Amino acid sequence: MNTFGNIFKLTSFGESHGVAIGGVIDGCPSNFKLDLDLIQAELNRRRPGQSRIVTQRKEGDQVKFLSGIFEGKTTGAPIGFIIENENQKSKDYSHIADSFRPSHADFTYSQKYGHRDYRGGGRSSARETASRVVAGAIAQQILSSLGIEIRSFVKSVGHLDLQLDQSEIDLSNIDSNIVRCPDEKMANEMISLIEMIRKEGDTIGGTIQCIIKNCPVGLGEPVFGKLHAALGHAMLSINAVKGFEIGSGFEGTLHKGSEQNDLFNNGSNGIHTLTNNSGGIQGGISNGENIYFNVAFKPVATIMQDQKSIDKEGNEVIITGKGRHDPCVLPRAVPIVDAMAAIVILDFYLLDQARKIAR
Amino acid sequence: MNTFGNIFKLTSFGESHGVAIGGVIDGCPSNFKLDLDLIQAELNRRRPGQSRIVTQRKEGDQVKFLSGIFEGKTTGAPIGFIIENENQKSKDYSHIADSFRPSHADFTYSQKYGHRDYRGGGRSSARETASRVVAGAIAQQILSSLGIEIRSFVKSVGHLDLQLDQSEIDLSNIDSNIVRCPDEKMANEMISLIEMIRKEGDTIGGTIQCIIKNCPVGLGEPVFGKLHAALGHAMLSINAVKGFEIGSGFEGTLHKGSEQNDLFNNGSNGIHTLTNNSGGIQGGISNGENIYFNVAFKPVATIMQDQKSIDKEGNEVIITGKGRHDPCVLPRAVPIVDAMAAIVILDFYLLDQARKIAR
Amino acid sequence: MNTFGNIFKLTSFGESHGVAIGGVIDGCPSNFKLDLDLIQAELNRRRPGQSRIVTQRKEGDQVKFLSGIFEGKTTGAPIGFIIENENQKSKDYSHIADSFRPSHADFTYSQKYGHRDYRGGGRSSARETASRVVAGAIAQQILSSLGIEIRSFVKSVGHLDLQLDQSEIDLSNIDSNIVRCPDEKMANEMISLIEMIRKEGDTIGGTIQCIIKNCPVGLGEPVFGKLHAALGHAMLSINAVKGFEIGSGFEGTLHKGSEQNDLFNNGSNGIHTLTNNSGGIQGGISNGENIYFNVAFKPVATIMQDQKSIDKEGNEVIITGKGRHDPCVLPRAVPIVDAMAAIVILDFYLLDQARKIAR
Amino acid sequence: MNTFGNIFKLTSFGESHGVAIGGVIDGCPSNFKLDLDLIQAELNRRRPGQSRIVTQRKEGDQVKFLSGIFEGKTTGAPIGFIIENENQKSKDYSHIADSFRPSHADFTYSQKYGHRDYRGGGRSSARETASRVVAGAIAQQILSSLGIEIRSFVKSVGHLDLQLDQSEIDLSNIDSNIVRCPDEKMANEMISLIEMIRKEGDTIGGTIQCIIKNCPVGLGEPVFGKLHAALGHAMLSINAVKGFEIGSGFEGTLHKGSEQNDLFNNGSNGIHTLTNNSGGIQGGISNGENIYFNVAFKPVATIMQDQKSIDKEGNEVIITGKGRHDPCVLPRAVPIVDAMAAIVILDFYLLDQARKIAR
Repeated sequence: MNTFGNIFKLTSFGESHGVAIGGVIDGCPSNFKLDLDLIQAELNRRRPGQSRIVTQRKEGDQVKFLSGIFEGKTTGAPIGFIIENENQKSKDYSHIADSFRPSHADFTYSQKYGHRDYRGGGRSSARETASRVVAGAIAQQILSSLGIEIRSFVKSVGHLDLQLDQSEIDLSNIDSNIVRCPDEKMANEMISLIEMIRKEGDTIGGTIQCIIKNCPVGLGEPVFGKLHAALGHAMLSINAVKGFEIGSGFEGTLHKGSEQNDLFNNGSNGIHTLTNNSGGIQGGISNGENIYFNVAFKPVATIMQDQKSIDKEGNEVIITGKGRHDPCVLPRAVPIVDAMAAIVILDFYLLDQARKIAR
Repeated sequence: MNTFGNIFKLTSFGESHGVAIGGVIDGCPSNFKLDLDLIQAELNRRRPGQSRIVTQRKEGDQVKFLSGIFEGKTTGAPIGFIIENENQKSKDYSHIADSFRPSHADFTYSQKYGHRDYRGGGRSSARETASRVVAGAIAQQILSSLGIEIRSFVKSVGHLDLQLDQSEIDLSNIDSNIVRCPDEKMANEMISLIEMIRKEGDTIGGTIQCIIKNCPVGLGEPVFGKLHAALGHAMLSINAVKGFEIGSGFEGTLHKGSEQNDLFNNGSNGIHTLTNNSGGIQGGISNGENIYFNVAFKPVATIMQDQKSIDKEGNEVIITGKGRHDPCVLPRAVPIVDAMAAIVILDFYLLDQARKIAR
Repeated sequence: MNTFGNIFKLTSFGESHGVAIGGVIDGCPSNFKLDLDLIQAELNRRRPGQSRIVTQRKEGDQVKFLSGIFEGKTTGAPIGFIIENENQKSKDYSHIADSFRPSHADFTYSQKYGHRDYRGGGRSSARETASRVVAGAIAQQILSSLGIEIRSFVKSVGHLDLQLDQSEIDLSNIDSNIVRCPDEKMANEMISLIEMIRKEGDTIGGTIQCIIKNCPVGLGEPVFGKLHAALGHAMLSINAVKGFEIGSGFEGTLHKGSEQNDLFNNGSNGIHTLTNNSGGIQGGISNGENIYFNVAFKPVATIMQDQKSIDKEGNEVIITGKGRHDPCVLPRAVPIVDAMAAIVILDFYLLDQARKIAR
Repeated sequence: MNTFGNIFKLTSFGESHGVAIGGVIDGCPSNFKLDLDLIQAELNRRRPGQSRIVTQRKEGDQVKFLSGIFEGKTTGAPIGFIIENENQKSKDYSHIADSFRPSHADFTYSQKYGHRDYRGGGRSSARETASRVVAGAIAQQILSSLGIEIRSFVKSVGHLDLQLDQSEIDLSNIDSNIVRCPDEKMANEMISLIEMIRKEGDTIGGTIQCIIKNCPVGLGEPVFGKLHAALGHAMLSINAVKGFEIGSGFEGTLHKGSEQNDLFNNGSNGIHTLTNNSGGIQGGISNGENIYFNVAFKPVATIMQDQKSIDKEGNEVIITGKGRHDPCVLPRAVPIVDAMAAIVILDFYLLDQARKIAR
């Protein structure tokens, strides 16, 4: 299941230390002029080595398009692309060829498939998400031409949680700091925390919030294609994600209906709800309000500390962290959340459009 | 998108106040002896009027099978079934034909489709989930024959949260009380709270936890078919669900990798992890530990209090709660969570099996 | 695999002698006013007992809609429907419970599924196609509102082949005789042949031609979604179909490129091809010319003569034809070909529309 | 729709004169040792320039695997691969940038997509089928390990038709001549005909027959997943294919049921049918006999003669054949038919296996 989407579809391939990763985007609207620099810019937001709080691995992460684009515009043919793996350092991983790193996919891949590319996690590596960023960046350009804007940011790192109301958040500030939290004071605290965690050879989790503005009313395909179910699926498919909540989410379970219901109002700017606990989706269909949701990332499993584990014969071994890993994956995960959100929204935009026949 | 699943697939149809709801189950293994009473028993767990803390609507919810079962056993042909709508009382809903109830799907369905069956929420009604319970009950029987057990229970209602360790929970107690919380003391508190809320004409949310035991190692199809992504999709497609978390979920974002990692151990009962923050799934694939996840339900949107809203011309109206609704949907949602979990697990069991060729 | 289509999807269920057959139509455009009488009229064209040259079984074949239609219009919700099996006469089939009829699906179903509803062929009976006619009749109404017309007719029965040029065929004559061949003289010959075959207790095959007029340019989704590949798949899924050819088909293999190529011409009525050997589809995409294709039906396998066969223990048995079967399935298959063509064309119309974003 | 298959899936990308063509194979069984030379050998059977009766274009057609194979064995991860386009000579095609070649996809692609890579047919070029040969060659190796053998050959070129009974055909002779007809005398006649046609600057069509031996009983998924419907879909998706027939096909429509029915017999080698007019498939499910079908290829549209056509403004133009094209595509299409057949059979093998649960 390496394909995602219904109409606008990404098929992804590639291992962390193989020849290349890449993908095929099928169902992209034709005759659309793409800005290839913007696509690379999104990849650069995900790239290792971009700041002192992320892994210092060097990967150029240059995307190379093989098909589907002609004279700068999409042709409606599938867009094939690759990103070559430059900095493979496979030696780093020989020590884990026969052992199972704790809370990694080594054990489950080995059991399921009987044969496993252990180098850097192989297919289970988050390196795969670069392909999603390519597809998402294309989707974002098309959505942008339709006026739809998607912006994600780091909401929390460990206990440091930006609990501002959405109206107080300045989304234009997201990339103004290396942790991608739009509040400068909180961003600095997060950066300090991550640096401390890194010195301990440890890692830390956090949450990303994504906000989608100007989504038209009507996207989402009940019953099983509810828009937030598709967004949840998309987010939960990202490495290290353990939770998803839309609108008031888990917090909303503490409240009464009389407090949670979003009342409709027909004001000067048209029909809107006075509150937005629904998170912009009602009955699985967008209602024109901002869509927002939170995504929970566990701490990265690779730590620079010795851990007990077992090898494939079941013998006890000590796993010693090596290589250059992220103390906190959140800053680099922001463009991945953006990308998956964009793929879902464009896909459901196209689906909704399919059934609107002129009468 | 009224079909769910890859190999074992449910297609669902029907409105709250139409002739009947029903479904078609495709891809069911053949030659399997079904216990039809057990299927009806699961429907009865979801049925209105089962206790004093749920809606007092009367619906027999008798499932009638039309195909796919012959001489008590599945034939491999699609299993068609219907549940007739007995107690339609469509008059109850005439007052909302032209108005949009707050935090319901009235507005979004109306905008998306241009024409809407407003009676009782029509297609957006949670009545649709009865079809899922039928399919899920069949899946559960097949899983049970494979030794896999799925048990869900009410973990929290409002602020009342059963924060026990899994080892302390007696899953055999789930149906020993009307709220379906396996801890008697907590159950009584929840029941009191729900009764109080009902008297206020209000509603309250909560969470359900689902535990899956004896799931074999190897279920899940990375990258986009991660097992918890499929479970999340399934749960988020249930009416009123606003959040999903697997394993330590949102709580786990507060901790360090050194605290969260689940260390492997080869003990007397084979390879297991010493902790289970992963929730039984690593890299999107089941690892043999208990799978567990939480599902957040918002408070029911229909309250017995006056609420401001608008009609389809945009005029302000007052919506006055009528009919017989649930003050808390959680007790009746337990079999729905069970059902969707069973559909996912069986589907991925079959998928995993597909690719295991003898060599 | 009881679901067909991408956007406009039919899921079919039911056995020949079960409680009912039926289906679920998902993805139907909403707010479309349906003429239910026209749907029943198409079913009546497929119904047993309609004339002296078809089976004399009595089945009312009354469709009953359960959902998805409200106040006469589609709501966008799935359209569930059933057709009850009235005239089951299961006794007729007890003699074949343990034996395999030649060139039927008895043997293969038995081997594949391990358990089989043998009554009247069960799931393998062509009775299932009634569900397709319902969905196709709905698709035809929507297509008709878009100006697209689909007409099928019996082109050949045995060696009697209507080898007229399309321009010489009067499609309005199709239903003017009981064999559904638009040429009166040929129709009479076909009827005589079928009556003779019936007296012999034998059966005969033939071909149906389908013509689709006013299909807009641009339907079809290369590479694997070529329009004629989808049409071929649809036709080959009909019981007894053994061949499909588009445009000049098999005959075209005998000719040279210089003879087969369809030259473009920009005449008074716009761009058209001077010939139409392509059958209205080039590169898998409709080109605006008439789409036409032929479908080959083998003779019905059930004959009123004794045939040697085996039972499930492998013992030799004599199968003696009983019941009321069709000497020639072609006249009743015409509305089935119409239906499957309509489902494909509407589905690809919606697919094509999905990707046309405003720019 | 550039993805084909249900469990074993090929996603294809690439244009004739882009950077590369390629594909992604998802769902391949893991831990299978691949012979990469055999894959290249199949590509070489499709490659231009392989003999004097095919196009003299030079393309190395070297496949390069990017992922999914580790230490010579499949890992269960998607197998990404590319074939670089070496010999692009895009100048050859500038003359058709603005004109529509007769019976090509130039017009329909242009109308559907609004923007088209005209170089060498772009996405509509049969060059795309090289990706299918790669996936098919992998499928064939897996099928071969299961004892299933797939062999296609040229049955007819124009009127030259090898009308031998299957028992008289020596499938080991297929590659003993450049036209891939297993009868030496007929092969020589075909070669002479193709050479004559080439001298005329013309092209000629023909048919390919495919025979599948040792297919186990039980493959095929009724109703819409009948095995021959899937095979038909697969074949009709190949460039230039206009017809498909299984078993006795169109010829069988001329006969009576008493002549066509395949009688079962329990002989010394188990249960078999005495004849095989069904073509190895009954009720959409394989019955253990040889599966065989014919595929009709129209003559190649590109001829070396002047043809009238129009440009994109609708002006009349003369299209003059240039470049190096095939006078007859049949010899090179044999491995493509093999490949698509193998993909279908493996896919349905895996599907069938999915639902066989141990009880």
